[in-house]
Amino acid sequence: MAKVVVVGAGMMGSALCVPLADAGHDVRLVGTHLDDAIIRELRTTRVHPKLRYELPRAVRSYPLTELAEAMEGVDVLGLGVSSAGVRWAAQQLRPFVHAEMPIIMITKGLAFDGRDLRVLPDVLSDELFGPGHTGIEPTAVAGPCIAGELARRVETASVLTGRSRPALERLGELVRTDYYHPRLSSDVVGVEVCAALKNAYALGVALAWGLNERRCGSPGSIAMHNTEAALFAQALIEMRRVVEHCGGDPESVARLPGAGDLYVTCNAGRTGQFGRLLGLGLGRDEAIARMRGATLESLEILQVMRAATTDARGQLAARDLPLLSHLAEVALDDLPVQLPFDRFF
Amino acid sequence: MAKVVVVGAGMMGSALCVPLADAGHDVRLVGTHLDDAIIRELRTTRVHPKLRYELPRAVRSYPLTELAEAMEGVDVLGLGVSSAGVRWAAQQLRPFVHAEMPIIMITKGLAFDGRDLRVLPDVLSDELFGPGHTGIEPTAVAGPCIAGELARRVETASVLTGRSRPALERLGELVRTDYYHPRLSSDVVGVEVCAALKNAYALGVALAWGLNERRCGSPGSIAMHNTEAALFAQALIEMRRVVEHCGGDPESVARLPGAGDLYVTCNAGRTGQFGRLLGLGLGRDEAIARMRGATLESLEILQVMRAATTDARGQLAARDLPLLSHLAEVALDDLPVQLPFDRFF
Repeated sequence: MAKVVVVGAGMMGSALCVPLADAGHDVRLVGTHLDDAIIRELRTTRVHPKLRYELPRAVRSYPLTELAEAMEGVDVLGLGVSSAGVRWAAQQLRPFVHAEMPIIMITKGLAFDGRDLRVLPDVLSDELFGPGHTGIEPTAVAGPCIAGELARRVETASVLTGRSRPALERLGELVRTDYYHPRLSSDVVGVEVCAALKNAYALGVALAWGLNERRCGSPGSIAMHNTEAALFAQALIEMRRVVEHCGGDPESVARLPGAGDLYVTCNAGRTGQFGRLLGLGLGRDEAIARMRGATLESLEILQVMRAATTDARGQLAARDLPLLSHLAEVALDDLPVQLPFDRFF
Repeated sequence: MAKVVVVGAGMMGSALCVPLADAGHDVRLVGTHLDDAIIRELRTTRVHPKLRYELPRAVRSYPLTELAEAMEGVDVLGLGVSSAGVRWAAQQLRPFVHAEMPIIMITKGLAFDGRDLRVLPDVLSDELFGPGHTGIEPTAVAGPCIAGELARRVETASVLTGRSRPALERLGELVRTDYYHPRLSSDVVGVEVCAALKNAYALGVALAWGLNERRCGSPGSIAMHNTEAALFAQALIEMRRVVEHCGGDPESVARLPGAGDLYVTCNAGRTGQFGRLLGLGLGRDEAIARMRGATLESLEILQVMRAATTDARGQLAARDLPLLSHLAEVALDDLPVQLPFDRFF
């Protein structure tokens, strides 16, 4: 049994507590200052208001003010804050972590530092320990995984990635249950690039749902699945280009981290709904308003990728990513949807 | 304008007539002896009873008895019979074809000759011209393409594959319209192996729909998409193994022919419904009965692959394809669904 602290009581961090508790660990879920209402609800009813599901009794909840108490005797730290909150979280956690502590990054995203695209486990490591850190590098848990399904113990195979094989294997054993099957990968860059980009590309596939409704089609077996499939395939081609640019393993794109995670993200949730609204022809502001404050990771990653592909020094050009570039035009610049099929494949 | 004859008035052959007619060609659709009712209906109302949609006026329909008349002056031949009908079709067509006639194979499947897995364009070429043929080899049109959507002019990007680049480019121009975007590939083996296997693997992904209903889940954003995604990724891994075994290009698996076609097949149609019934726990015979005589390509390809992976001389072993092997156990041997996650990835 390990003492595991998860910081960030959003959907994915909270859902990961379920297999951790089922595997017999002492699990402590710490909310950020944005999670106070969630923690209050969990302490009263154990029902997570966003997951709409009861967490196991073994998961104890703490507000941020009780971080120090929660971190007492911690063996493993999970970080599930928003991608914008990684630096903030590092500041909060620095007093409690040490160089040999296993850390699992749950937050997904990419950062552009003006020269390179960087994956968040590496950003976190720099923030916690400074560049040149020689201890255990943070691992990360990626998709394919819908949080609401993991919380309900749906059979799930997720990628766990890290550069230290022994650390990875220990963490894999830590989280494994009869319904949660971690798949180990040493390709941190490839896995994390896929996990970040899938939100942008799932938005792209979902445009076809809205386009179908716009032409008075209904969902069902005859819709615009052909168009979705073309967008799906183009997404994998472009994800591969970015993975290769960042030095990751292109093979990850055709497997669980890329195709698997994109598949699941296309089939559920807020990214798809947002894409559908844009495909329907709503302007970006109206589409965002209709999402009622839901976190739109797709917008974050489109902004990062726009910065990375327009930088004069970058070798990653927007013209090599025609679908991603068009998604940025639609979701950031409010241009109408006009799929550039002649620039695909 | 070309004179194009499509033999086989099933869904895909008939749907392909739509872009051909829209591109301005003289299109003649010839039914097999199994298509007499379809041809009668087309001649009366122009509505294809399986597509439930009206074909363009430029598509003329012929029963098999009028094959000779339809073939008069033919420039390009399309073959859209069932995979079991390829040899029969070759016998019918042999008097009318010559070595330089461009042929587009629409039928999908693999054949096992007791030693090798063979793609159908090569089987057709042997049947028409004998082994060692030096004329134009048949090309093939593959997915991702739901016939009912193509007939309704949904924007579609499909793979057109052939070994002769000039022939391929001519055919690409022939079928291109503003909504139908052929993507050219010289990887005949990789494309055709993916196109055949996707029916088996889409059945596998759809098992999770039935498993979800069995645990009283409803379709929606929280279902068993995590399980589906794991099956989808495992499918791509196994498709790659078969493509490599057959000498195709593994890159095709991560693109339109593999991931794109599997995506579209998972999202629609009878293969998914059949998989759902098996996932629900129905026995194979009951599941087949519920499909009311629909052609189940998934059963055909599972039988071919079982023969190819159990042959003592084969280097393709069933143990390297754990998902496919389990699908054969469920759909051919009537064993219960028990996903072998520990043998995946």
